[in-house]
Amino acid sequence: MDNPFLVEVTRGNLVESRHRGSIAVIDADGSTVLSLGDVERRVFPRSAVKALQAMPLVETGIADKYGLTDEEIALACASHSGEPEHAAVAEAMLAKAGKEVACLECGVHWPMGEAANRALAAQGQQPSALHNNCSGKHAGFICLACGMAEDPKGYVTAGHPVQRAVRASLEDLTGASHTDEVGGIDGCSIPTYAIPLPALAFGFAKFGTGVGMSREGQIAAQRIRRAVARHPFMVAGTGRFDTKLMEILGERAFVKVGAEGVYCAAFPELGYGVALKADDGGVRAAEAMMAGLVLHYLPLSDNERATVEALAQPVLKNWNGIEVGRIRTAPDFLQ
Amino acid sequence: MDNPFLVEVTRGNLVESRHRGSIAVIDADGSTVLSLGDVERRVFPRSAVKALQAMPLVETGIADKYGLTDEEIALACASHSGEPEHAAVAEAMLAKAGKEVACLECGVHWPMGEAANRALAAQGQQPSALHNNCSGKHAGFICLACGMAEDPKGYVTAGHPVQRAVRASLEDLTGASHTDEVGGIDGCSIPTYAIPLPALAFGFAKFGTGVGMSREGQIAAQRIRRAVARHPFMVAGTGRFDTKLMEILGERAFVKVGAEGVYCAAFPELGYGVALKADDGGVRAAEAMMAGLVLHYLPLSDNERATVEALAQPVLKNWNGIEVGRIRTAPDFLQ
Repeated sequence: MDNPFLVEVTRGNLVESRHRGSIAVIDADGSTVLSLGDVERRVFPRSAVKALQAMPLVETGIADKYGLTDEEIALACASHSGEPEHAAVAEAMLAKAGKEVACLECGVHWPMGEAANRALAAQGQQPSALHNNCSGKHAGFICLACGMAEDPKGYVTAGHPVQRAVRASLEDLTGASHTDEVGGIDGCSIPTYAIPLPALAFGFAKFGTGVGMSREGQIAAQRIRRAVARHPFMVAGTGRFDTKLMEILGERAFVKVGAEGVYCAAFPELGYGVALKADDGGVRAAEAMMAGLVLHYLPLSDNERATVEALAQPVLKNWNGIEVGRIRTAPDFLQ
Repeated sequence: MDNPFLVEVTRGNLVESRHRGSIAVIDADGSTVLSLGDVERRVFPRSAVKALQAMPLVETGIADKYGLTDEEIALACASHSGEPEHAAVAEAMLAKAGKEVACLECGVHWPMGEAANRALAAQGQQPSALHNNCSGKHAGFICLACGMAEDPKGYVTAGHPVQRAVRASLEDLTGASHTDEVGGIDGCSIPTYAIPLPALAFGFAKFGTGVGMSREGQIAAQRIRRAVARHPFMVAGTGRFDTKLMEILGERAFVKVGAEGVYCAAFPELGYGVALKADDGGVRAAEAMMAGLVLHYLPLSDNERATVEALAQPVLKNWNGIEVGRIRTAPDFLQ
């Protein structure tokens, strides 16, 4: 099955590049709201499920045991830009579990945020694992291990109690099996499991509404959604799509990007969960689709609409600031 | 017409992302060697035609008038990484025409090369237009203007004698009309014109062989190809695909990337010109396709083959250096 063209990139009067993709929107009762393209093809959700991966930390009461703040819980769900505030919050999380940066097993990379990247270089510094965009999630994993009285060493491996708990949470929420045959290793070294988009969307419908979850799960999901809504900077960073969208929509839209063009979302007031992927892994296409879905489904004020439209159809400017084209959803996207 | 899947990105045992595209390989006599996908759809060649855009500079004798070196001519064809050597050579080109950095109209951006980017920041400096990946091309345009006794001011606009000469050269080589209706503005502010891939490939077949060109054109094309083959670092930079490929193949393969997943090439010994585009603009896919074409068409030594295979099927490693997948040409690519 050929996935439809869902996003176009224009230059002058022509379409220069085109992205295909697939989208699933599922209600909290599991019924299909939207199915576009081959949604049964398994997709690695990558970082788009970080909020679901943070569920055991909160649900077990371990987040409370260590007194994790909303900022820290938001960072546990983040693919952050490595700005100084992100690194500081990750370090504080580790300290609460009595651990240090050396315990992080996510690997080291320069900050994803360009300004943060150059600022670090300008200070003559090198990045640490705290600057890895996944450091908050990993600090959360280390808290989870310590709270379970497990040695955090090796917490990224599939057999460690941390990943077993995370996998159980993902299987429970999505209803999809997470077996080795559909497994891969993520950028930060933890396992990632490919599942169909409707299962992923269903997981986010439950995460957004609490429907079908235990009482502890409901409280944990609400706590995580609220934490991110209160600190959208923590989940991404300066100028980033997720931060901008949640700054304006708060708890009305939980959205999270994943590598290779994946996006997940929950729209709690509608009871909808969303999962989508750009076939080619293009993040710009995934962002345009997600903003398009927000425009389509959520009632918005004029001010909110203007912000989301700018995210859905970003103007492309060149190095002299001249408008050269734009990114926009294609005619086959939600006609 | 649906373009075929030409490149896959794997993770674990699964294909995580897929790129579609189209390819044209044309002989110097204009006959079709390969046509994959919808090759009649017009494509903006972007920076992939910089070598053809440099033709007027050399063909008119103006490059010689200013004593441009092979390094400088190679830089005129470059999308460089903004490393110190690139900036220095661009500045030297301007000086030969008696001009300064302020004459560059390409705009300013931080070096594309990550190490160069951070090194500049670490020195407490800001980038100039010399660091723009197109600065060599623009320095060449300024030399061309001065050599034609024209004021270089406004040399990026379609009506300026420089762009008129460049457009005439592109139309002559490709045989495709370059009209306003198919025009757009490039990242560096000059006009770019969308043309079908076979026309683009034919232009490179001529550029690679001299067939059908004037004597001056033949000499200019050979001079440009030789300059780039001698200084492949100048045309891209440290670790870049074009640099690595031409370091090992020299004059046997002229290859040049363009933004939005375009690649052009000339294989002079075969008389072939190549033009391709990844539908979605993915450069990783365009690189894999180009390396795949080199493997398919050019006779290679074991050493050459090993280098090109590594470019065709790069291993993807995560932040801990663990292999997580690879990029590879898909089954529909040159079976």
